[in-house]
Amino acid sequence: MTDLQTPYYAVIFSNQRTSEGEGAYNAMAARMEELAASMPGYLGIESARGEDGFGITVSYWETKEAIKNWKANAEHREAQKRGRAEWYKDFTLRITKVECSYGMLERQEKKNG
Amino acid sequence: MTDLQTPYYAVIFSNQRTSEGEGAYNAMAARMEELAASMPGYLGIESARGEDGFGITVSYWETKEAIKNWKANAEHREAQKRGRAEWYKDFTLRITKVECSYGMLERQEKKNG
Repeated sequence: MTDLQTPYYAVIFSNQRTSEGEGAYNAMAARMEELAASMPGYLGIESARGEDGFGITVSYWETKEAIKNWKANAEHREAQKRGRAEWYKDFTLRITKVECSYGMLERQEKKNG
Repeated sequence: MTDLQTPYYAVIFSNQRTSEGEGAYNAMAARMEELAASMPGYLGIESARGEDGFGITVSYWETKEAIKNWKANAEHREAQKRGRAEWYKDFTLRITKVECSYGMLERQEKKNG
């Protein structure tokens, strides 16, 4: 995801998967990305998971209200429930305000300019 | 990493690896984690990378000054240079303020309490 105009919000979701339900989990994760992208104030999402099952998903939002709204979405709440019960051994969720950002190329330009 | 008292700061480093220098990259990454942990204001670090080479590293800091100080560290600057030249196809770095957070267990307690 490229740079956005600050300030905006990032939700950092760090999580450790259980070994359960790989297929169902992946289907849910794909559906949640699709659903999030349909919500007002959505700016983007990024995700990485290593072989040890530890993953970080960061979703980006225009406002805190948009995050609250996404959290309260009925289909998302169902996924959250299953996540707690089956898919996550542990997680931490952080709501953060993005104060500044730069990309690899922009920084080079700034440095050379 | 467990919950911390907010507010504090999170640096979200989203990056796409090139296919170059796996061994040297991993050694640098391990050394940078060790070095970061020795810096004032360091709170923790989390990292995940998938098979596609896309990775997210989030480091946590007490203040923005601590982040500035870490960014300016001489050994870290050398690593940043090599990162741009060899190891990263692309990256975005975001400095964010953590406004609230909850873990899997805390949330359950709150819900039941």
